[in-house]
Amino acid sequence: MTFADRLADAVRRTGTPLCVGIDPWPERLPGRGAGAEPTLHELAALSRRFGLAVVEAARGLVPAVKPQFAFFEAMGPAGMHALADVCAAARDAGLLVVGDAKRGDIGSTASAYAAATLAPSAPFPCDALTVSPFLGPDTLEPFVGAARAHGRGLFVLLRTSNPGSARWQAPVVDDLTAWIAAQNAGDGGYGPVGAVVGATHDEGLVLRARLPHTWLLVPGFGAQGGSAAAARTMLDGEGLGALINSSRAATFPATADPRFDADPATWIRARVHATIAELAAG
Amino acid sequence: MTFADRLADAVRRTGTPLCVGIDPWPERLPGRGAGAEPTLHELAALSRRFGLAVVEAARGLVPAVKPQFAFFEAMGPAGMHALADVCAAARDAGLLVVGDAKRGDIGSTASAYAAATLAPSAPFPCDALTVSPFLGPDTLEPFVGAARAHGRGLFVLLRTSNPGSARWQAPVVDDLTAWIAAQNAGDGGYGPVGAVVGATHDEGLVLRARLPHTWLLVPGFGAQGGSAAAARTMLDGEGLGALINSSRAATFPATADPRFDADPATWIRARVHATIAELAAG
Repeated sequence: MTFADRLADAVRRTGTPLCVGIDPWPERLPGRGAGAEPTLHELAALSRRFGLAVVEAARGLVPAVKPQFAFFEAMGPAGMHALADVCAAARDAGLLVVGDAKRGDIGSTASAYAAATLAPSAPFPCDALTVSPFLGPDTLEPFVGAARAHGRGLFVLLRTSNPGSARWQAPVVDDLTAWIAAQNAGDGGYGPVGAVVGATHDEGLVLRARLPHTWLLVPGFGAQGGSAAAARTMLDGEGLGALINSSRAATFPATADPRFDADPATWIRARVHATIAELAAG
Repeated sequence: MTFADRLADAVRRTGTPLCVGIDPWPERLPGRGAGAEPTLHELAALSRRFGLAVVEAARGLVPAVKPQFAFFEAMGPAGMHALADVCAAARDAGLLVVGDAKRGDIGSTASAYAAATLAPSAPFPCDALTVSPFLGPDTLEPFVGAARAHGRGLFVLLRTSNPGSARWQAPVVDDLTAWIAAQNAGDGGYGPVGAVVGATHDEGLVLRARLPHTWLLVPGFGAQGGSAAAARTMLDGEGLGALINSSRAATFPATADPRFDADPATWIRARVHATIAELAAG
């Protein structure tokens, strides 16, 4: 079964397009306490606990989770152990895993990143991976090949949600959109090559219309200022075609909360319920 | 002391601008043998041994080594342990470490990647990091800030050596070149923000002229088809300003060689000597 079909099924089954990000912010990790500066090993252990709590909270409620590789990498090899455990636990829990790594490199190096994440025996098992197109279409081919071979997906950075995104994306957005559309043209329905399109841009609707066979990953809902209404415009008539991500707003309290530290899974589950409702009301 | 000055000193001291890449190709690792498919742990152990052999071979001969993160990541958490060990060993050996990770992300996520590599306590300690600009100038700022704060450097992808690089780089190369030049304008001599420019493009000389204060990282010498003569045109009048990389051609035999398997450091050291001579003769 293709990634696109598995994702559509998961959205239908859960009734929401919400993807919950797993961003283990070192300063805010539950259970960190106010004592001495933790070591990287201690932070990695707290990140593993936090990531598993998000998985437990998200189980059955949403179609997918999105671990952010950078935070785990910052905690060193122990952090990467935690990332591997969290990815595996999410898949075991029936959640699709969107690895947010924004990888990109040439030839055999791109293949190595794909092997790390998209192969059946990948040490960081993901159902889809975010990738950067900047190096060129030839550098995306190993990722596309791995995704097609293994029933996985990609989300190619197209128009991101940060303030400066236009500067080096706007000059190529038309051609990159055409390239992405062409990848999925032969697949009927939705194809394996998705695109990252922020909920903070008016041009989202234009890109949505130009990419009728492309799943969009829409960051920027919640903490980054994108509204639920704007995010929902990226969905097709059946409520499919866009996976709308919330990370910090769906998983961390705005201010210190002892219930979050004591039982993060229960606290996060309530917050995920609330985020699903916010998104549905938008 | 800034990264740019440390790099200039190292090039002067060794008399060569050669950077030796550390790409632990799983199929070709010395000592792998011809038996059963190794596990990821076994591959990581072989990669650690290979990386330490390159460090031993390169010690005192060249200014820098360039570990390719992707190959280590493909071997999972154990591979990332090996990467951390190889980075630390290279710095202990007096080699500058250029982490080839091509990272890029927004805001706090970019800061996490910088913390992983460029901070004084970074688990993967690098003197410089390759970064992708696609997400926008605001997303490079955390990397620039970390580099300036800690005496480290960056190499921003500008015009890479792969066949398809023009498609989404050419439309932005002028503006990105201007952005990079502006980062280094206030530093006198060379500044902390370098650029990746392949030796396979005629436009290299144009970029060299437009970036008088920018260290260039020049891949594509050797295996990727760039000539020594083309690579040397990227140097300034003092033989500085460009770090010319060779990975596979400088570290792997073209065909199986039992001496490489038995004593990779000695074999690679001879090959590094030969590569330095090839580059000097170009």
